[in-house]
Amino acid sequence: MQFNIAELTEKSILVHAPLPPNVNIHGTGFAGSIYSLAALTGWAMVTHIMDIQRIEGELVIARAEIKYRKPVTGDIQCECTVPIDAYASFHAEFKEKGKSRLVLDIIVGDAQAVLNATYYVSTASV
Amino acid sequence: MQFNIAELTEKSILVHAPLPPNVNIHGTGFAGSIYSLAALTGWAMVTHIMDIQRIEGELVIARAEIKYRKPVTGDIQCECTVPIDAYASFHAEFKEKGKSRLVLDIIVGDAQAVLNATYYVSTASV
Repeated sequence: MQFNIAELTEKSILVHAPLPPNVNIHGTGFAGSIYSLAALTGWAMVTHIMDIQRIEGELVIARAEIKYRKPVTGDIQCECTVPIDAYASFHAEFKEKGKSRLVLDIIVGDAQAVLNATYYVSTASV
Repeated sequence: MQFNIAELTEKSILVHAPLPPNVNIHGTGFAGSIYSLAALTGWAMVTHIMDIQRIEGELVIARAEIKYRKPVTGDIQCECTVPIDAYASFHAEFKEKGKSRLVLDIIVGDAQAVLNATYYVSTASV
């Protein structure tokens, strides 16, 4: 997939991947690659937040819904910005309960696809 | 991913893939691969139905939601059975409107994950 993190801040991430290794039979972005890149973008974001917030736990993706609106015809860009409230409550809930979840929207390109994913972290092994 | 169709009937499909090329850092099934294999299973099912029903059109996946319930620790199996009503209405709607959709549940393993996906076919290019 050739996942590459182009920008990373405390509450945002931007990922690039080239189109050629991720095409379908139509020569546009393969649905599975688009999903995987978007899900990995969210995963990388949460991992980074866990580092900053000093949360040690096992991270999994619990569920995700993707909507494909238009074909992706160029290089694949995935973008995610974490809402301030969600950022704070993710930390607070983990400190209180030893487990927490973060729901993120990952935008692919110019919203050609949008992933809504729930990431779950807990101290216990899943 | 090493996708392999083990069984295929008019209204059902069973797909196998080995675990080793599809693992995450925990050594269990990678979420992106599980999604992709499940989505491809539904795609192959719809393609087969289009052949049987003599539907010629462009097939896309419009949306999909996946729920991950347990880690996949062995080879990955994806199974899909098409409800009889959905099978019939997919055909009827296409004949009437030149476009149609089929919503499928794809079960991964012993329901370690479940994908609900909407496939859309139309005579016009998307």
